Amino acid sequence: MSKERLVAFTDAVLAIVITILVLELDKPTQVTWAGIFALRENYFAYTTSFFWIGLMWLSHHNGWQEVKKINSSIVILSLVMLFFTSFFPYTTSIMASHFNNSVAQALYGINVILVTFSNIAISQALNHANRHLHFGLLFTTPNWVMILNLLLKFIGLIITLTIYPPMMTWVVMFDVAFLSVIMWITRNNDQTI
Amino acid sequence: MSKERLVAFTDAVLAIVITILVLELDKPTQVTWAGIFALRENYFAYTTSFFWIGLMWLSHHNGWQEVKKINSSIVILSLVMLFFTSFFPYTTSIMASHFNNSVAQALYGINVILVTFSNIAISQALNHANRHLHFGLLFTTPNWVMILNLLLKFIGLIITLTIYPPMMTWVVMFDVAFLSVIMWITRNNDQTI
Amino acid sequence: MSKERLVAFTDAVLAIVITILVLELDKPTQVTWAGIFALRENYFAYTTSFFWIGLMWLSHHNGWQEVKKINSSIVILSLVMLFFTSFFPYTTSIMASHFNNSVAQALYGINVILVTFSNIAISQALNHANRHLHFGLLFTTPNWVMILNLLLKFIGLIITLTIYPPMMTWVVMFDVAFLSVIMWITRNNDQTI
Amino acid sequence: MSKERLVAFTDAVLAIVITILVLELDKPTQVTWAGIFALRENYFAYTTSFFWIGLMWLSHHNGWQEVKKINSSIVILSLVMLFFTSFFPYTTSIMASHFNNSVAQALYGINVILVTFSNIAISQALNHANRHLHFGLLFTTPNWVMILNLLLKFIGLIITLTIYPPMMTWVVMFDVAFLSVIMWITRNNDQTI
Repeated sequence: MSKERLVAFTDAVLAIVITILVLELDKPTQVTWAGIFALRENYFAYTTSFFWIGLMWLSHHNGWQEVKKINSSIVILSLVMLFFTSFFPYTTSIMASHFNNSVAQALYGINVILVTFSNIAISQALNHANRHLHFGLLFTTPNWVMILNLLLKFIGLIITLTIYPPMMTWVVMFDVAFLSVIMWITRNNDQTI
Repeated sequence: MSKERLVAFTDAVLAIVITILVLELDKPTQVTWAGIFALRENYFAYTTSFFWIGLMWLSHHNGWQEVKKINSSIVILSLVMLFFTSFFPYTTSIMASHFNNSVAQALYGINVILVTFSNIAISQALNHANRHLHFGLLFTTPNWVMILNLLLKFIGLIITLTIYPPMMTWVVMFDVAFLSVIMWITRNNDQTI
Repeated sequence: MSKERLVAFTDAVLAIVITILVLELDKPTQVTWAGIFALRENYFAYTTSFFWIGLMWLSHHNGWQEVKKINSSIVILSLVMLFFTSFFPYTTSIMASHFNNSVAQALYGINVILVTFSNIAISQALNHANRHLHFGLLFTTPNWVMILNLLLKFIGLIITLTIYPPMMTWVVMFDVAFLSVIMWITRNNDQTI
Repeated sequence: MSKERLVAFTDAVLAIVITILVLELDKPTQVTWAGIFALRENYFAYTTSFFWIGLMWLSHHNGWQEVKKINSSIVILSLVMLFFTSFFPYTTSIMASHFNNSVAQALYGINVILVTFSNIAISQALNHANRHLHFGLLFTTPNWVMILNLLLKFIGLIITLTIYPPMMTWVVMFDVAFLSVIMWITRNNDQTI
């Protein structure tokens, strides 16, 4: 198994997931500005999922750059990660149409958490197979950031299930903003091809 | 982040968007020549979106050929561009089924304008990161062409919102024809592999 | 514009078209063997389109192997070819659900013919840009084969519009079988990577 | 025909099939935990198909690594394999919505068996074209494993058609688990890029 083919397959699946999200987006029942505005929760849900997967792809990218060796377990873990990711159009669509339903929001949150854990497992397996790598929980993201991140998602899930159903999407959207800032701070500016 | 992986991801998303457009195309209610003819606005809308994205891909292609360095901000701007582009099947479909509705047409126009601005932002960021490049507003397209182009789109949007709703699609179709001519004139004919 | 990026984009669009065909396939109303058998025309239509596009991809492949130079006009012709090809899920679906309707069959036939003409135009443009190539009408396919092939499609279209509506699909299916045999005879067996 | 372009096309189609499976997944009629639980057979069917195709991709991958020469017959056999694979979203969807229907399950089983036989045919053709390869029935999988595997699928099909309709999915799920173990045992751990 070559790293290149696995990375290309991962990219292909992520590109497809990110693009077919829109096929599940509800159309306005009346094409007026009010009809568009009535779908604001759908657009919010779609935006959250698009950029969450987009940033995951970016993080995957940066993480895999230094990888030299892969093995079967890493491929199988990648399939598991893609499996959970492939549910995004499904869970986003249910959540978007039932924005104030705690089950819909929890389902979406569980999806996000399962993808995160799969990525952590991939990161660990890569660390193990490549002695020159020194990954933390998730690639090069500092561990305290990841622990805070996971904690936040679990608290979000609890709040979604108890007090305020839409909490989960807000947490994921916050995650997107947070990760953007972290990536911005830790970016390597002048990478040559 | 390597330029190659970003370009491949961009190409994959654009290829998917351009191909799933047809999934949203209305089917004739009666399969007769009259039934097909009744959908002429749908086919016109579909054709416009297909070639507009196709030419954007071509322009992206020519622009990126000389790029040597990329950084995180360019990747994030590319995600933003792909995000807006991913709405094309959605906005094209709404516009095609409501060709004389000013909101549907304006939504489509705003989509086109947001993708254009994202591409301008990418072009600026590339210019900044690669000192050997001398991009204008949009890659190597002359600035006066782009300013005329943007002006035309805004005027189209205003006419769509006030006098004649279908104006927006006509402007985008004109843009497609216009860009084709510009590309033809400024083409480098004999590029080797 | 590099040949590689154009070929990769073409392959991506063809791969997507060939795979989303199935999304438009009718489901049996009753899941019994009789219910499956009732959809035999749908399966026949789907099979025809899948292999016709598959063989087109194969022919494209063999044709482009020796190509060294491309230019803007070749890219624009490729976009036109992909545009017509992207209609396959649409026209196949209409034809499959209205197998004995002459308009549905003619629409499908016109789609096939337009893709064929686009490929002929690409072949001519490649011939012109690459002096070492000696393409006939369609890459390395002998001209008399292509002329027979086009003649057959036009006769099929006329029969579809006048006497026997399903003729068009039969002609395309015959084309698939015919091209397979031609490719088999003219194959270069032992190509190294 | 280059091996690389064929492998890339195969990967693209498999990536798309694996990702559009979810588009056919039934949504809960009531978004409650009971509503989700009612769809457990759908999720089971989806999971089975996802990992069966995923492992097929992995096996394809390992098998093709040593391939040096391909010819037209291998490309045509690959198209046949992709053709049968492209039916997965269709047969999985019918089977998932009719989990206790023997026709739906048999259809799914026949789909799995046809893909397996196509892969065996590809493996034989590769063996014939590449003298340095010593493939068994399916790439490097031991023959007795494949014979057991095929036997199991045929027995599963018979049980599905006679006594217990859902048997087929269970057999395929068992196949997924079985193949995972075999791959784990025969994995080459430290492959360099």
